[in-house]
Amino acid sequence: MTTILYKAKYRVYWSETDAAGIMHFSNHFRVCERVEESFLRSLGFQYTAGSRITFPRVHAECDYKAPLRAGDEYTVAITGVELGRSSVTYKFSIYNESLGREAARCVIVAVAYDNIERRPVELPAECRSAIENALRELETEQA
Amino acid sequence: MTTILYKAKYRVYWSETDAAGIMHFSNHFRVCERVEESFLRSLGFQYTAGSRITFPRVHAECDYKAPLRAGDEYTVAITGVELGRSSVTYKFSIYNESLGREAARCVIVAVAYDNIERRPVELPAECRSAIENALRELETEQA
Amino acid sequence: MTTILYKAKYRVYWSETDAAGIMHFSNHFRVCERVEESFLRSLGFQYTAGSRITFPRVHAECDYKAPLRAGDEYTVAITGVELGRSSVTYKFSIYNESLGREAARCVIVAVAYDNIERRPVELPAECRSAIENALRELETEQA
Amino acid sequence: MTTILYKAKYRVYWSETDAAGIMHFSNHFRVCERVEESFLRSLGFQYTAGSRITFPRVHAECDYKAPLRAGDEYTVAITGVELGRSSVTYKFSIYNESLGREAARCVIVAVAYDNIERRPVELPAECRSAIENALRELETEQA
Repeated sequence: MTTILYKAKYRVYWSETDAAGIMHFSNHFRVCERVEESFLRSLGFQYTAGSRITFPRVHAECDYKAPLRAGDEYTVAITGVELGRSSVTYKFSIYNESLGREAARCVIVAVAYDNIERRPVELPAECRSAIENALRELETEQA
Repeated sequence: MTTILYKAKYRVYWSETDAAGIMHFSNHFRVCERVEESFLRSLGFQYTAGSRITFPRVHAECDYKAPLRAGDEYTVAITGVELGRSSVTYKFSIYNESLGREAARCVIVAVAYDNIERRPVELPAECRSAIENALRELETEQA
Repeated sequence: MTTILYKAKYRVYWSETDAAGIMHFSNHFRVCERVEESFLRSLGFQYTAGSRITFPRVHAECDYKAPLRAGDEYTVAITGVELGRSSVTYKFSIYNESLGREAARCVIVAVAYDNIERRPVELPAECRSAIENALRELETEQA
Repeated sequence: MTTILYKAKYRVYWSETDAAGIMHFSNHFRVCERVEESFLRSLGFQYTAGSRITFPRVHAECDYKAPLRAGDEYTVAITGVELGRSSVTYKFSIYNESLGREAARCVIVAVAYDNIERRPVELPAECRSAIENALRELETEQA
């Protein structure tokens, strides 16, 4: 059984497709980020421009398993979150609801970066504890 | 009073912003199209790749009134639809809910285009009548 | 004869197409902005994030005349620039070189905006004079 | 010494940046694809919409090392190509010329897919031999 920490449902917009009639492979990273934003907002956080600490991505990868076509409904689920000293690793599964198949699995790693000191820094404490709480609640629910 | 034929609410995703911290002006056209797709789906239509008849845009314009920032919630409303022989003209209003201000007004004109005959053709009858019904229902509600 | 103030040649990238096999209509605005950036860079200016004065767009419009397909080579020409007190109006023509046809005509209006005072301001003098010089040189060439 | 099979130089366009002032991480995949298209065109191939054989991506990954900011000039180099039965694996290095630093390393795997039989198929022979020739020429040059 896959643990789902957070999920949201979307449609493939026409502007996200390419000439092969499917969602362009770069957009899978955008929809994963979309869910991450939504997840963090649910915990009380929001990326804002001009912050001292931002979360640039240091790694992103995706395995594509089935196409997403214009109009297809799909769910993006966060299936795992791992916290390092300054990094957050998210695992995602994209499920094509219209097709009844998993469309992709993706991993994105972000690091807390101090734009004044210009180096990675420890994850802000309130961000770390909010995510840890979310993980703990999930464990309790599943116990 | 502005007539609202159809509307949907979204968030500004991080990937839609630019280095000025606001939604890139090209993305307003994408979110208008997004609502158009949703409106047509509500009437039983869906753009599909490989169709004989597609709906390329012949005109698009937008007046920008206030910024949309990452995370802002906004409503895109279709405030008018006009049917020509082969054209559909949509009018949109984008309202920034987080800011409490209208963000933009846009107009998009699409034409029914036959990809085999390679010329504009009359709007498909079922498309025309579905939109006309939607307009009529709205009038009745407002009467 | 159309005056051409500045122009650049590009290819339609696969990621810029949509499921109809053509460049998505929102991308025409992006390629016009691309040429504007290149034009301003040729005059010694560059948009930078975090500037006090930025140039948000207040109006954008495009008339689409012929499709741009994946791989097509096209030229984007600035065919006119008009300077207001705080605004710059650019006119563009996009010519599909592979097809031998004009693909679109676009107009984009930007205003100088002071991000601290949060209001439109007069065009920075050095920006105004650089553009005026470029326009004057063109007239001389054509005389 | 890194082998460079093919390379091209670009600028970061304003529309490719996000609210952190840097090229959005999803766009690195687009610029890699851009170079792949250019490489294949140099060999006489072009992706076209509606082809029976298309090349959907089955895997994409990127390690981000340094930011690309609006206006930065950068080179995307294909540093390796591996041919499987139906797959092509590309390795890319993105070098920020303005900063004098490598910005990212990416890997993209595409497979030849038959849209009628709806399954991966052997790489088209002329595609395989054109790429093999390019690799062979490179070896000869370096010998």
